[in-house]
Amino acid sequence: MAPESLTLYQQRIEQQLQLTMAAQPQSAKRLHQAMSYSLTNGGKRIRPFLVYACGTMLGASLTNLDSAACALECVHSYSLIHDDLPAMDNDDLRRGKPTCHKAFDEATAILAGDALQALAFDILAHADGDLSPQRKLKRLAILANASGVAGMCAGQAIDLAQTNQHTDLATLEQMHRLKTGALIECAVQLAYYSSELNSPETLDTLTRFASALGLAFQVQDDILDIESDTMVLGKPQGSDCKANKLTYPALLGLEQAKAKAQQLYQDALAALDCLSYDTNELKAFAQYIVARKF
Amino acid sequence: MAPESLTLYQQRIEQQLQLTMAAQPQSAKRLHQAMSYSLTNGGKRIRPFLVYACGTMLGASLTNLDSAACALECVHSYSLIHDDLPAMDNDDLRRGKPTCHKAFDEATAILAGDALQALAFDILAHADGDLSPQRKLKRLAILANASGVAGMCAGQAIDLAQTNQHTDLATLEQMHRLKTGALIECAVQLAYYSSELNSPETLDTLTRFASALGLAFQVQDDILDIESDTMVLGKPQGSDCKANKLTYPALLGLEQAKAKAQQLYQDALAALDCLSYDTNELKAFAQYIVARKF
Repeated sequence: MAPESLTLYQQRIEQQLQLTMAAQPQSAKRLHQAMSYSLTNGGKRIRPFLVYACGTMLGASLTNLDSAACALECVHSYSLIHDDLPAMDNDDLRRGKPTCHKAFDEATAILAGDALQALAFDILAHADGDLSPQRKLKRLAILANASGVAGMCAGQAIDLAQTNQHTDLATLEQMHRLKTGALIECAVQLAYYSSELNSPETLDTLTRFASALGLAFQVQDDILDIESDTMVLGKPQGSDCKANKLTYPALLGLEQAKAKAQQLYQDALAALDCLSYDTNELKAFAQYIVARKF
Repeated sequence: MAPESLTLYQQRIEQQLQLTMAAQPQSAKRLHQAMSYSLTNGGKRIRPFLVYACGTMLGASLTNLDSAACALECVHSYSLIHDDLPAMDNDDLRRGKPTCHKAFDEATAILAGDALQALAFDILAHADGDLSPQRKLKRLAILANASGVAGMCAGQAIDLAQTNQHTDLATLEQMHRLKTGALIECAVQLAYYSSELNSPETLDTLTRFASALGLAFQVQDDILDIESDTMVLGKPQGSDCKANKLTYPALLGLEQAKAKAQQLYQDALAALDCLSYDTNELKAFAQYIVARKF
């Protein structure tokens, strides 16, 4: 079961994202609409949850966490828009609704993604709140690093290169650690740097937790792609198999993939046990991630 | 004639961009190659020149200007990659060489653009040099603002919306002020914030100079599109006309468009005359921009 705070943080990030978009100029109306459409398209808000839950645990103010959560979700949202494009995964549906290029058009979708990425850095660079300029810079550095050629973009590039090719577990894992893991780790690191805490060990431990959680999420995603049906999932069931994408069940078999997800879940819990904070909320969230059915 | 320093600064930015790319991880080799290909594709480096020339004039260190110039050129380069895509302007040639999606593929081109944008912010967020954290943050804020829905992306969206439609001079001007002007203004603002100078009037005056120069550049581009031939220009001559794009000569006639370029050139010079610095280099550059044949 999801932690109670998940709904609260989901509501908070929805509101923050809406406020953010309302504050943006609308001289290019269709672009603004496409950005809003994708940004408020009802995601699970896993990354914002991690920012809020981790950050609150470490004593960060909600104001500082708002900017971190919004920026991170802007990057995530832009990446989904671009991943869905015909030249990439060519998906018509995202969360049961037309993808951005289907609801608008391809050019607008490319631009909406581009502008959402810029917005992410805009939010962090303009963030008020009582954070020191050094910590603000650190948040920008972490997000830029996690998003680009050292992180998410590299993961997506490796993913594209793998399609229709036989490959091994190490490559699959590297791909996911970059494509999804980088932003999940970024979430807890943004939370850390949104607080005043100065403890490299805590940062390391949180990153270890996020790393295991991120991979667990991905393995569970692959499992769900086989086990769920289209209605619950919001995308055609088995769509990854059809595109001949490499998945954990395809490489390990379904049972071993489930065992892998459980192992990663245990790794995540073990990391949390090293922390001298109340980690119940994060534990409940990790449990929710590996037990989720959608 | 171009100022003598143009070649020097061109050489410097080439080297800086190459060093920057060499320092990036290559776990996704093709992505890295596509980024390097587009980034070092022999542009005129107008924005880096403005960063270096303005910044040096204001007493900024070359180290601080290197990061500003590199970041800005990364944004410019990413925007060209995405603008050239089939869903956008569908161009096969850029500076006489195959565009990124032609030399690689569409998916890689989209990702290369995305990663170059992230790299721009990465460069500014990780910049060393003796600049205060506040000024570093300010540079990030300015670049993010100029790139996104308040600047360049909005300009490109307006441009897309105008194709095949009749429109007026005000719309054309707004489009250019956002699409090209925002980054040109950003260049002088980055130069200002790369220095220790504290003079809002100087910042305003430089922005006024850049604003006139940016529009002059665009008007001249439209004129060249009619007057030059493919070999000199590196793209099919008259390609803007063929795509039925709105241009200054189309709206004003060729002679009036030339008068407009001259007027903007005079505006740029007038702004420089308000400054108590040696502005000869910037004046020579403005002259070069409106007199250029390619």
